[in-house]
Amino acid sequence: MTTPPVRTETIVWVDRQPGYLDLLDQTRLPTEVVRVECREVDQVWEAIRSLRVRGAPAIGIAAAYGVCLGLQPVRDGSPDAFLARLNQVLDYLATSRPTAVNLFWALDRMRKCAERSAVRSDPPALWRELLGEARAIHDEDRRMCHAIGHVGAAILQNGQGVLTHCNAGGLATAEYGTALAVLFTAQDQGKSLRVFVDETRPLLQGARLTAWELTQRGIPTTLICDSMAAQVMREGRVQVVITGADRIAANGDVANKIGTYGVALLARAHNVPFYVAAPHNTFDLSIASGSEIPIEQRPAHEVTHGLGRQTAPDNVEVYNPAFDVTPAELIRGIITDRGLIEPVCAERIRQVIGSSEA
Amino acid sequence: MTTPPVRTETIVWVDRQPGYLDLLDQTRLPTEVVRVECREVDQVWEAIRSLRVRGAPAIGIAAAYGVCLGLQPVRDGSPDAFLARLNQVLDYLATSRPTAVNLFWALDRMRKCAERSAVRSDPPALWRELLGEARAIHDEDRRMCHAIGHVGAAILQNGQGVLTHCNAGGLATAEYGTALAVLFTAQDQGKSLRVFVDETRPLLQGARLTAWELTQRGIPTTLICDSMAAQVMREGRVQVVITGADRIAANGDVANKIGTYGVALLARAHNVPFYVAAPHNTFDLSIASGSEIPIEQRPAHEVTHGLGRQTAPDNVEVYNPAFDVTPAELIRGIITDRGLIEPVCAERIRQVIGSSEA
Repeated sequence: MTTPPVRTETIVWVDRQPGYLDLLDQTRLPTEVVRVECREVDQVWEAIRSLRVRGAPAIGIAAAYGVCLGLQPVRDGSPDAFLARLNQVLDYLATSRPTAVNLFWALDRMRKCAERSAVRSDPPALWRELLGEARAIHDEDRRMCHAIGHVGAAILQNGQGVLTHCNAGGLATAEYGTALAVLFTAQDQGKSLRVFVDETRPLLQGARLTAWELTQRGIPTTLICDSMAAQVMREGRVQVVITGADRIAANGDVANKIGTYGVALLARAHNVPFYVAAPHNTFDLSIASGSEIPIEQRPAHEVTHGLGRQTAPDNVEVYNPAFDVTPAELIRGIITDRGLIEPVCAERIRQVIGSSEA
Repeated sequence: MTTPPVRTETIVWVDRQPGYLDLLDQTRLPTEVVRVECREVDQVWEAIRSLRVRGAPAIGIAAAYGVCLGLQPVRDGSPDAFLARLNQVLDYLATSRPTAVNLFWALDRMRKCAERSAVRSDPPALWRELLGEARAIHDEDRRMCHAIGHVGAAILQNGQGVLTHCNAGGLATAEYGTALAVLFTAQDQGKSLRVFVDETRPLLQGARLTAWELTQRGIPTTLICDSMAAQVMREGRVQVVITGADRIAANGDVANKIGTYGVALLARAHNVPFYVAAPHNTFDLSIASGSEIPIEQRPAHEVTHGLGRQTAPDNVEVYNPAFDVTPAELIRGIITDRGLIEPVCAERIRQVIGSSEA
């Protein structure tokens, strides 16, 4: 581990001989900015497993570069040894976080890249091709985030207060994030904003990650407890709410971090427009509505012991749903890399997202 | 300090020779049930100052007993020495928490009790009279809590889910509390309830104190983060919301712990009736509406460092209002020791509360 003075990018491939992967260690935020240099595939596996890199798109990108790292030692060997090692590395990285969809998707792309390659018998060339594919995955995510930023920034006006919940930032993606991409792009356009960040209990992604990303970029940021959002809205401090999304149904119902639904209700009560920002591949058009999305339950200790010490009596029952579903009727618009969906309804979603696979 | 096996009363005067005050140390909850035996007035002062005893009514009661403790050593001396010491003790205890209204109110009652006494020249008799006054303050608060409990329990039906926010329990009062008195009385009546407790960030009074009080009494309790209340309501788990109050205006607007207003909005959105429970002396009829109540701001570190470790970046701005105001229109009824106020309007408040001083 080293601590460069300024570098805060989530994921950087350093193209030396040999190359290595340079990750921002998210488990140390917000109190320490520490990077992890992964020079072996095992280190990438460990970084994913232990949440040093987190967020579905970021995990996929790190895994793709991890494949290149794992093949680097056999780059000058025989084609057979190279291809055998490729399969080993793909299988190995797939075990780092068994439920991460983007992980499997990225590893599958790397596998297909090798399968269709015209240089399978030339390991150094094939390795360069695989590195190119990892970079393509990285670049596509970056472009998607920037596209979301440009679509969303048009909604924001200079001087507005914006409230966000959880972390939908660059730490979870290639660079700009989704909801935060909108804010970063508005800042790039010279708009001055004040962002209110829900701390987002129980795991405090808002306090730990979103507040860090915003203050890093010099955006005026005010941290609040989740229970303060209503008061902040009542005082007229918030003109727009923007959150990310985990999954969006064909009718526009949005599954996202627990608390999002409550914020949407509070926004409606104060006539504050509520927007969701997400890439097109967050839509799952095979799901008609949010009622088909099961609510994942998380362990009690996240609530009772999540912050350094025990804060509730022994053996108290805890209800800890990981996310909730905000019905489409509470959402003014969905900001995607393919354009703004407004109003939020099945027809408009089909127009903008089209036949995209989920 | 001693640790009796079962005793969990907030405040107990132990009538030995000499007598002493036995307090539940609320700073050690919920992980430890530890009592503080105060045998000198200094120990009562310290217990109030360091929040071992907290909640406006409980502070007043402890201070009244503290006066008796402080006079115990001079009980067999001259009348002049006794009365001089009385003034010293009253002035001393008043410095324990300079902004606690109930503290001054209770000390004033003790002073007036001595002033009007017919046995001022007989210190042992006057001391018994002062102990009687402290017990009267204690008993009145207990009766008020029980009256609230009986008025409120009539609202609850067997099998209902109830949501509460912050701590309006016996730890803040003589015994039964206000909002929690309603639940305890319903339990005494044989009604089976399930109580959802908002943890109540930033200081977690719900998780630390309310969840402890409820589980101590064997009431089925589910702890949630504040951000989960909307989801719990949406799932149909909550039929009634009951909270306490810090101050109630003449029109029925209620100032209470931050987050109460948001819960009231969420309750309305789910057609769940929202009740407030408070003694008659919480009404301040000199205030026409909640807009006249200033919102106290609390320090940033309660949000950024409140839980054992730093959970937000250095120097991030924090907005930390201590309470909010729930407008009367969101409140189905106010449960008081003098009866139920429903609907909540100035006329009905005047009828029930009458000319009570605040």
